[in-house]
Amino acid sequence: MTEGLFRQKIAIIGCGLIGESWAALMTAHGHDVVAWDPSTTVLAGFEQRVENARKQVWQLMPTGRPDTGCLALTDQLETALVGATWVQENAPEKLELKQTLYAQIEAAIDDYVIIASSTSSLTWSELSVGMKRPQRLITAHPFNPPHLMPLVEIYAADAAIRALSLAFYTGLGRQPVVLKRDAVGHIANRLASALWREAVNIVAEDIADVSAVDAALVHGPGLRWSVIGAHMAYHLGGGDGGIEAYLKHLGPSQERRWVMLGSPKLTPDVCKKLIDGIADEAGGRNIEALAAERDAALIRILQVNLS
Amino acid sequence: MTEGLFRQKIAIIGCGLIGESWAALMTAHGHDVVAWDPSTTVLAGFEQRVENARKQVWQLMPTGRPDTGCLALTDQLETALVGATWVQENAPEKLELKQTLYAQIEAAIDDYVIIASSTSSLTWSELSVGMKRPQRLITAHPFNPPHLMPLVEIYAADAAIRALSLAFYTGLGRQPVVLKRDAVGHIANRLASALWREAVNIVAEDIADVSAVDAALVHGPGLRWSVIGAHMAYHLGGGDGGIEAYLKHLGPSQERRWVMLGSPKLTPDVCKKLIDGIADEAGGRNIEALAAERDAALIRILQVNLS
Repeated sequence: MTEGLFRQKIAIIGCGLIGESWAALMTAHGHDVVAWDPSTTVLAGFEQRVENARKQVWQLMPTGRPDTGCLALTDQLETALVGATWVQENAPEKLELKQTLYAQIEAAIDDYVIIASSTSSLTWSELSVGMKRPQRLITAHPFNPPHLMPLVEIYAADAAIRALSLAFYTGLGRQPVVLKRDAVGHIANRLASALWREAVNIVAEDIADVSAVDAALVHGPGLRWSVIGAHMAYHLGGGDGGIEAYLKHLGPSQERRWVMLGSPKLTPDVCKKLIDGIADEAGGRNIEALAAERDAALIRILQVNLS
Repeated sequence: MTEGLFRQKIAIIGCGLIGESWAALMTAHGHDVVAWDPSTTVLAGFEQRVENARKQVWQLMPTGRPDTGCLALTDQLETALVGATWVQENAPEKLELKQTLYAQIEAAIDDYVIIASSTSSLTWSELSVGMKRPQRLITAHPFNPPHLMPLVEIYAADAAIRALSLAFYTGLGRQPVVLKRDAVGHIANRLASALWREAVNIVAEDIADVSAVDAALVHGPGLRWSVIGAHMAYHLGGGDGGIEAYLKHLGPSQERRWVMLGSPKLTPDVCKKLIDGIADEAGGRNIEALAAERDAALIRILQVNLS
């Protein structure tokens, strides 16, 4: 836990994959968590899943690990909110459902408490409608798998609340990034969606197989983007003149390429190609095995960046 | 050098940044190189630049480093081609210039020798027009910085030549990826261009700053794409049902998002935002310092993958 950041009592609202990751990360950083879900089926096994994820988080905390925070579960919303100093909401992506939850949460918590929504596809402007104190709502979108990926995308309408949020997620070992205005898909999912559109197009147009597209990304731009961003890459691609020279000499060819990129549709034929291609790439490994490989590889890279 | 791959005598045609990287990589793997460029200005300092790049390549060859191959320079094309067993062409991206070069090269080399073009923006179909033996031409596109980035994108019209090319670049420690048909931008630059279009849009629309977009990419999708490809990421995003479940449940929302993504123009205003944003992100670091940081970070990650 970052020095000086007091031990929070965090209410986790919604115990799916995202809630589970937050619980692992937050308890590993010494915060106490009460996790709420209306479904006792979802709550069953939650502690074990959190413990498994927390073991992975610990691999990225080689020194100075604080005492693990307490984890309690409840199917009663009000119980989760008693004394809460932070609320992390990970309910299903349904606007009305979240708005109803916020009304219930606001009625139960102290005025200073922030409600952070993990929403991936809704915006602050939509979500905050009808709240008593809309500024207390922020969007804090993590990236899957959230207990390992450093990115948290923040939109906060109020400057002081924004600063507090940055401090909070930084204290969880995250790399928070600020949006100047809220947008569907924040930053990362917009970028991912734009790239995937062309990745689908390349398969649909028979330029390359699914596994070749994935390999090109992993050993090429993906690897480079794990080190420098897309804008910076073109700055370094411009030679001594940097981005200014790049835009002058190669900007027009980028604009021509943009026009030429594909606009695929996810037709049954295209879906079949994607599904068959993934089966080929997976080569018999099931989802669990693939996710375990991904996590182990992420941990190895993140450990390098720690040292 | 991969066991069983004989020591080649490679003619490097064009001694810019790409030629320099290939020379470093190929000599580090024990091949002899004769590098040709018509400009003595370009040739001046070439050996030193190759040596610097080779030192970085060596950091990725902790064991089993072969004797370094010989490096010779010439401004006479025919001299470079005497006894060549492989030709790697990195001339400027001008179709007629390359076609003229191929005619000269074909006149000087043995029938079995492959001419590999590093072209980033031209296609095999265009480049091979007028050749005596078009099948001997392949495109073998590296990714910047080519002596560090593992990706080489291959298009070869002939199956046996394709197999030979894969063996050759694999022997250089590369990760070659095969295109089924040739396409402008191959795979990686199409993906990069598609992503950058939205990265520019996010800045143009004031959703986030240049540095925030780059940080979101580096700590989010970029990091993940250094481990798994975009298609595989959605396979793992589909839960137990994998890509099939993803396409069924979230395919329609992806299609809606694709429609919503931006189509920015590189207007003077947008260019100014990008240039100012990069200046802010660079924070006084010049191109050389930024490239050195990028290279050091790439080497650290690639070293992890070696072990």
